[in-house]
Amino acid sequence: MITSHHNPLLKDIRRLHRRRDGGRFVAEGEDLVAAADAAGWQPVVRLRAGVDVEESVLAKVSSLGSGTRELAVYEERWAQPAGPVCVALWGVKDPGNVGTVLRAARAFGAACVAIGPNTADPFGTKAVRASMGAIFEVPLARVDDVASLPGPRVALVARAGEPMTGPATGTLVVGAEREGLPDDVVAACDEVRHIAIESESLNAAMAATVALYEWNRVRA
Amino acid sequence: MITSHHNPLLKDIRRLHRRRDGGRFVAEGEDLVAAADAAGWQPVVRLRAGVDVEESVLAKVSSLGSGTRELAVYEERWAQPAGPVCVALWGVKDPGNVGTVLRAARAFGAACVAIGPNTADPFGTKAVRASMGAIFEVPLARVDDVASLPGPRVALVARAGEPMTGPATGTLVVGAEREGLPDDVVAACDEVRHIAIESESLNAAMAATVALYEWNRVRA
Repeated sequence: MITSHHNPLLKDIRRLHRRRDGGRFVAEGEDLVAAADAAGWQPVVRLRAGVDVEESVLAKVSSLGSGTRELAVYEERWAQPAGPVCVALWGVKDPGNVGTVLRAARAFGAACVAIGPNTADPFGTKAVRASMGAIFEVPLARVDDVASLPGPRVALVARAGEPMTGPATGTLVVGAEREGLPDDVVAACDEVRHIAIESESLNAAMAATVALYEWNRVRA
Repeated sequence: MITSHHNPLLKDIRRLHRRRDGGRFVAEGEDLVAAADAAGWQPVVRLRAGVDVEESVLAKVSSLGSGTRELAVYEERWAQPAGPVCVALWGVKDPGNVGTVLRAARAFGAACVAIGPNTADPFGTKAVRASMGAIFEVPLARVDDVASLPGPRVALVARAGEPMTGPATGTLVVGAEREGLPDDVVAACDEVRHIAIESESLNAAMAATVALYEWNRVRA
């Protein structure tokens, strides 16, 4: 059982919280580790309070104010973009929003979340936590080109195009909170849609959640 | 122009960030203050960097890591629960979720957000920020009884009842992330609905957003 804060493994985990390297990431909390187990992910390292490491020592490597009973390190996985339903994020910089989109993708049956340029790391600590385990269930792809996404590609924008409804398959391309999608990305898409709202905007996670819900509803 | 960190007004604002009192709250950032102006809210105090207060001094009372150009203090406002569409939160403890529900209520035309027991303070700093200005546009009510909400009252739960669709007016009652709605609250509602999902759950903000979208869609 690890009893020292100076243990190299713990130093490694503290560093991973700040800046990931070596393609590994940390999942913290019994629920997340259970989600990884259920999805068949083998941890590189697994630390349980009172079993593998002293509780107070584990608390010090926790990114949560409340400490944690368990954490584990995994190797990140990347897949190719895939349909029938994919969500692509372009410039979504808030890791909480990226994690929430993963959760929505899981809830509404998307096959893939594609991470485009200038988007928060989906394997970062905050995104993993916000995903509530969906990080282990929804395949992730890295993309830098709309053409690599399953078609039709639907640009989700604040006000242009038709209201959101079908085609209900293809890729939903979601942009940043303020700037929206770059013009060249919109131009490279096959369709432009918006969610009918009475205010200025929704955040990227809310917009993606509603759009995924709508496609799921239309398919069902 | 205020130049001292020890100015009593600034101390007051720092305290309001931590623990609100006197029915006042802080809105931070030019966008939020502009939203308040547009909605006709008069600030009790308004501080602009370089005009009313030195920039570096204002930065020290900011709750944002990046500092702020402007902040203002307002008196909170409470209304009675009102329809045709109301959202009631019961045990939603995360202030970011409360603010996001306000934003969704604004986007999808709800007349009121009702704050039930054990729910985060909607006028707290984090909730105000997450609302993106909707705090100034959507009337808030305090409730401790389902019977005081506009009917029909629809309990939004994880899996029971019919899938979410009409009546499209009345009150959507949304519970906590994990525990959901207490049994007595569900029993006091007129209908029980769920959002059809393929995973365990959505968070309260996502569920409320989708439900409000759905009601708005059905009405349109």
